[in-house]
Amino acid sequence: MGGYFITFEGGEGAGKTTVLHTVTERLSQAGYDVLATREPGGIKIAEKIRKIILDPLHTEMEEHTEALLYAAARSQHLAEKIVPALKQGKIVLCDRFVDSSLVYQGYARGLGMDEVLKINQFAIGDCMPDLTLFFDIEPKKGLERIAANKDREQNRLDLENLTFHEHVYKAYHILAERFPARIQSIDANQTLETVEQEAFDRILSLLKK
Amino acid sequence: MGGYFITFEGGEGAGKTTVLHTVTERLSQAGYDVLATREPGGIKIAEKIRKIILDPLHTEMEEHTEALLYAAARSQHLAEKIVPALKQGKIVLCDRFVDSSLVYQGYARGLGMDEVLKINQFAIGDCMPDLTLFFDIEPKKGLERIAANKDREQNRLDLENLTFHEHVYKAYHILAERFPARIQSIDANQTLETVEQEAFDRILSLLKK
Repeated sequence: MGGYFITFEGGEGAGKTTVLHTVTERLSQAGYDVLATREPGGIKIAEKIRKIILDPLHTEMEEHTEALLYAAARSQHLAEKIVPALKQGKIVLCDRFVDSSLVYQGYARGLGMDEVLKINQFAIGDCMPDLTLFFDIEPKKGLERIAANKDREQNRLDLENLTFHEHVYKAYHILAERFPARIQSIDANQTLETVEQEAFDRILSLLKK
Repeated sequence: MGGYFITFEGGEGAGKTTVLHTVTERLSQAGYDVLATREPGGIKIAEKIRKIILDPLHTEMEEHTEALLYAAARSQHLAEKIVPALKQGKIVLCDRFVDSSLVYQGYARGLGMDEVLKINQFAIGDCMPDLTLFFDIEPKKGLERIAANKDREQNRLDLENLTFHEHVYKAYHILAERFPARIQSIDANQTLETVEQEAFDRILSLLKK
């Protein structure tokens, strides 16, 4: 479509959100036209869907319903925000995308990665990321980082037990093996500066292909 | 699961809703434990999803988003209301179900029946209806009936053009050929009394199998 679609993935405390912001700035300074986004992306319909998913009163929500709602919000975010930006030739950096659903709902919640992939393929068509950066850090270490960072508000996922996060971690590795052309791992145990530099270099080498 | 799951399908003006209510009464009088329902079935989460779909301000809604939202509402209605009733051994009569999505979104809106079936299989698992009654009437005639009935409030679908309704009609026939063991057609051109009697007889013969 002209632009580049790049997603940032990883468990909690891997630093991907911080890195996404730094890389966005550096790419802008280098003269690239960049859009940084994350689901639900400020899209009215997607925000409303998200509100239903996250409402703490909805304890009766069935897991398949939840996965379908995530896919619906993704479809709308993609159609309204990501695709138009790509058509304008922009570089779109998105904090979490389809892989997060495969890993969290498909694997860790046990709905099946292939099953969750099917409904997401319906949602996004052939608009898969050109590149996915997986920030690879052991869950125990990632969670320690979060605990040490008092500015970070804990979310629902941070509060899951360690086994859940280990499943997430394992699932990211399964995906990285399955889609080696798309998913590139970055060792997120390194210093933030090194991780940022690596992410920036990987993206630049895609843009200069 | 013990009970029987029966769905009523057809184009606008086929009389299925009226017949569903009569048949529910007759089955109850005959001593059967019956639940009559229709999506979103009064389920809080499903009602909220439906509200997003039907909000007239959401003109930007992408068709895939809409289909995913219908599947999500269906999943919740099924899990919270239909499955528990079936487990209690009830006869569940549902006004429209998965076939409506295949026909309206899959075929008439052009998303593809197989594609829409995939996301619905995710939503409902193997909980397909035991029997589906298709009320078969030419769209032109069905729409004339609606126009003649001043008590009936027109809905969004009534206002689509005739070609749209003809696509819907064609798609129901495709489905009836594809799933002959599940879908039984009833000639809805007959008098209401005859149609009701036929529907009642078909259901009774399923229950007495």
